[in-house]
Amino acid sequence: MQLGLVGLGKMGFNMRERLRAGGHEVVGYDPRPEVSDVASLADLAAALEAPRVVWVMVPSGTVTHQTVGELADVLAPGDLVIDGGNSRYTEDGPHAKLLGDKGINFIDAGVSGGVWGLHEGYGLMVGGSDADVARAMPIFDTLRPAGDAADGFVHAGPVGAGHYAKMVHNGIEYGLMHAYAEGYELLAAEELIADPQAVIQAWTNGTVVRSWLQQLLAKALKEDPGFAAISGYTEDSGEGRWTVEEAISHRVPMPVIAASLFARFASRQEDSPTMKAVSALRNQFGGHAVHRISESG
Amino acid sequence: MQLGLVGLGKMGFNMRERLRAGGHEVVGYDPRPEVSDVASLADLAAALEAPRVVWVMVPSGTVTHQTVGELADVLAPGDLVIDGGNSRYTEDGPHAKLLGDKGINFIDAGVSGGVWGLHEGYGLMVGGSDADVARAMPIFDTLRPAGDAADGFVHAGPVGAGHYAKMVHNGIEYGLMHAYAEGYELLAAEELIADPQAVIQAWTNGTVVRSWLQQLLAKALKEDPGFAAISGYTEDSGEGRWTVEEAISHRVPMPVIAASLFARFASRQEDSPTMKAVSALRNQFGGHAVHRISESG
Amino acid sequence: MQLGLVGLGKMGFNMRERLRAGGHEVVGYDPRPEVSDVASLADLAAALEAPRVVWVMVPSGTVTHQTVGELADVLAPGDLVIDGGNSRYTEDGPHAKLLGDKGINFIDAGVSGGVWGLHEGYGLMVGGSDADVARAMPIFDTLRPAGDAADGFVHAGPVGAGHYAKMVHNGIEYGLMHAYAEGYELLAAEELIADPQAVIQAWTNGTVVRSWLQQLLAKALKEDPGFAAISGYTEDSGEGRWTVEEAISHRVPMPVIAASLFARFASRQEDSPTMKAVSALRNQFGGHAVHRISESG
Amino acid sequence: MQLGLVGLGKMGFNMRERLRAGGHEVVGYDPRPEVSDVASLADLAAALEAPRVVWVMVPSGTVTHQTVGELADVLAPGDLVIDGGNSRYTEDGPHAKLLGDKGINFIDAGVSGGVWGLHEGYGLMVGGSDADVARAMPIFDTLRPAGDAADGFVHAGPVGAGHYAKMVHNGIEYGLMHAYAEGYELLAAEELIADPQAVIQAWTNGTVVRSWLQQLLAKALKEDPGFAAISGYTEDSGEGRWTVEEAISHRVPMPVIAASLFARFASRQEDSPTMKAVSALRNQFGGHAVHRISESG
Repeated sequence: MQLGLVGLGKMGFNMRERLRAGGHEVVGYDPRPEVSDVASLADLAAALEAPRVVWVMVPSGTVTHQTVGELADVLAPGDLVIDGGNSRYTEDGPHAKLLGDKGINFIDAGVSGGVWGLHEGYGLMVGGSDADVARAMPIFDTLRPAGDAADGFVHAGPVGAGHYAKMVHNGIEYGLMHAYAEGYELLAAEELIADPQAVIQAWTNGTVVRSWLQQLLAKALKEDPGFAAISGYTEDSGEGRWTVEEAISHRVPMPVIAASLFARFASRQEDSPTMKAVSALRNQFGGHAVHRISESG
Repeated sequence: MQLGLVGLGKMGFNMRERLRAGGHEVVGYDPRPEVSDVASLADLAAALEAPRVVWVMVPSGTVTHQTVGELADVLAPGDLVIDGGNSRYTEDGPHAKLLGDKGINFIDAGVSGGVWGLHEGYGLMVGGSDADVARAMPIFDTLRPAGDAADGFVHAGPVGAGHYAKMVHNGIEYGLMHAYAEGYELLAAEELIADPQAVIQAWTNGTVVRSWLQQLLAKALKEDPGFAAISGYTEDSGEGRWTVEEAISHRVPMPVIAASLFARFASRQEDSPTMKAVSALRNQFGGHAVHRISESG
Repeated sequence: MQLGLVGLGKMGFNMRERLRAGGHEVVGYDPRPEVSDVASLADLAAALEAPRVVWVMVPSGTVTHQTVGELADVLAPGDLVIDGGNSRYTEDGPHAKLLGDKGINFIDAGVSGGVWGLHEGYGLMVGGSDADVARAMPIFDTLRPAGDAADGFVHAGPVGAGHYAKMVHNGIEYGLMHAYAEGYELLAAEELIADPQAVIQAWTNGTVVRSWLQQLLAKALKEDPGFAAISGYTEDSGEGRWTVEEAISHRVPMPVIAASLFARFASRQEDSPTMKAVSALRNQFGGHAVHRISESG
Repeated sequence: MQLGLVGLGKMGFNMRERLRAGGHEVVGYDPRPEVSDVASLADLAAALEAPRVVWVMVPSGTVTHQTVGELADVLAPGDLVIDGGNSRYTEDGPHAKLLGDKGINFIDAGVSGGVWGLHEGYGLMVGGSDADVARAMPIFDTLRPAGDAADGFVHAGPVGAGHYAKMVHNGIEYGLMHAYAEGYELLAAEELIADPQAVIQAWTNGTVVRSWLQQLLAKALKEDPGFAAISGYTEDSGEGRWTVEEAISHRVPMPVIAASLFARFASRQEDSPTMKAVSALRNQFGGHAVHRISESG
């Protein structure tokens, strides 16, 4: 079918390729002319036959919000907008309303798979009405991985449910990565273990902890033994924070995912004000030595 | 090749089957005559040609210790004992010494795969000398999953390294399970999500969190929607505790695996003395109501 | 000086008493006629000479919001409203604006001390303009504990700062209580310790962990040895949740306070969906026994 | 009464002073002649009338073990040794046995108070027989703070109980310090808060979180605003590790104290292998940028 695709970055670019390979007609728009098929969102609208389906794949937050607002102006009643970015689910309601006021329909779609999605397919979690989801199904069927549809695609609920499911997916991802990483650090600290990489590699088949992330960890360690080349400074893109905030809102105990989130915060601090305070306290009551900045610098 | 196998429980029984299917001659011993091939460990020794290889697959701790001691009596110099149970790695040195004093060699083998190992193969992590590992390799090759050997088997280091690697594997397992479980609880708490099972099922292909445990979680939820039939009471078999103790010993921060371990402890308490104390404190300073035992029963 | 006091519950009632004992003229309003000095907020306004100072001491959230709205109607330009409840600091700006639009000034005041404040005084953290704080200082001076003013009162910053400081105070309180409680549980679990109460009592003087909470814990254990009479079910009033949310917003690692918050959530669950999922997973891969609901009930 | 005191470091030196001021005759021994009263342990034994009481106040572990062994040689049946250092409680049994084989009695004493103990007194938790504790009571009565004996001294149980209680005391201490420190970091991160020091100072009277540690934190911040002069690198002396190990051994959930322990471990790492692994994983699946060592150095 015909699809407008706004945003041709790392994700959108690959998705256009996969969709075209799947036989769809994709008109892509991106502010960078070298990758864009049209010059503007208005041109995008003009290039598509009504009723249109337009997939938005731009950075979450301001950019997505702006894009949805501009689409509300150039699209027409009966069109359908799919937000496939990592928007917080709380933004989906307002976007659906903003578009709905003009008769335009809305689906939110959580998309997983990263750079591997082009060839392996993207895991999809979508939220919206049955009718809207049915309408976009040919697109979803091409984007999702081959195999049983239920293993790579879910209509998770009404508007917001897709991004909610993706948020939880990413929160879990934080916890999984941290569990593997703690285990790696312990293996690396123990003299008995000749090569942590080989141990982690050997978990690929047959073990309880086998997973895609486990294989990626083995691969990463092979490429950079001991992780000598990179630092532990780790960004977070928001979903981990939102997941813990949702846990608090629902009174769900979430110690594991929260611990992995806090460890990312700590990884980005040059020094920890908390630990400075602890160290100062030890010095106060016990006369324990503190590390002066001049020493530790 | 020929192998003695001591312990024909859930794991050992299946391993005998897999090994025989792989063309090995296995003489199994178990105190339960209905599954045992011989009547005693002495008979087991007599039934094997020297130099023998004997695999021990019995409960860790006392039973393993006793079995190793008895094997030291019935085996002969040049024989090889493999402890495939979930022994703590600190017991491997003493066992190697006890056997070594009689000229008997020793390998420790961490075995993962549970009830699925019979058909899928067992992930193996072994510790011992190169010569001993080479000698037992035909057994390892049959037990491990098909495919690249490095993906299902590792000679992790000297005696102790196999159980150490398995301990870390299980510690990671605690963290992974807890991360998935926290995500599940949040999905189940959120009204937008029509069916948590469908969401988790849809992570099977293409997503970052796809794994064997994720598939098992989807399967478990399908079999028992909402986990209505089971309680949260969760045992721990020791490896989680040992992993955190090793982390402390190596000064490795391990918040995620420790949190998942503590949650298991808490799951087995009828009521929490810690929370009783917190509740009592709130009542003391704020006059906040407490739940009397009579109310909460 | 003259003060209007709205809300004569556990806190407000005692504060009226302390303020009157300190020589202030307090007109109190409460919907319960048996404790109220006047029949309505309008009567309260009428009973005070302009420019008025009115202290609001009602439940945070809806009730506070409503009360501030009603005061905006019955008060006059130049009056001053002090919100002494446990409002979230994010509500202070809107309340200041709502009142400011009518020329009414606003201070937020965090008040600590619970039922003990009547005699020991209340720890105060306030936010607002220098002029407003100066104007209410006679009230603050009577409410705060005797001794150095800086030890029981702080003008923490502009509007919002008082409730922010109180929120952090309460977040810390969660962590402190949980630390003591964990220690108590361990003492109670260890056979060597003849009487945990006596140990905790003995920390009152000379030790590093001595504190008011430690004394309250000793007192609580004396009154209810082993906490036999109460359950661990523990409410939370919001500040702990807000503190962790602020930590997330500021990217501050907060594992300790978050852990104590999550433990409260868990204390209120009849069974843990997370642990049900973990238990189900263990059963799936290892054939480990699960506790069926029928057994554990 | 007469007392031998072995170890005249930061703690022992002050204790000798406090005991002498209390009217006791103290013979101190230390390898540093400038502080020692006698030249050797043998001289110490010779200088005391039998039956002797000797207090050991030396670093825990090897030094304590050695000292106890040497005392077993120079003391006589009927003498009493008190280990007042921070020994792990598991060492008390062996020490009691080693001395008991020669007819020498043993008490373990946990001592809290640090550099402040000289003037404020030391919080004492002791383990041993009733008879031994009664015999040393004049010493305990002088060392402990003034006031009700039950508020500064406890006979916690048989040999080992004193160090156990002290270990738990220190574990709690870790949690308390970390809770305050997390709150401090949040206050410092929030623009509304004019001066975190003033807020923490204002918690001294009337608040729920008031404590000695809270006052020390206010004092430390006054001396070094913003902790500009010190780093967060924080040692741990063992009790925190032992407390968490005991929690694991007793199946006591201990998330708060464990989190504060792990944060200390992390504070001493130049970079975190765990976070390197997490960062590498993000790069693998998402193409997310990592910080190369060359950039972040």
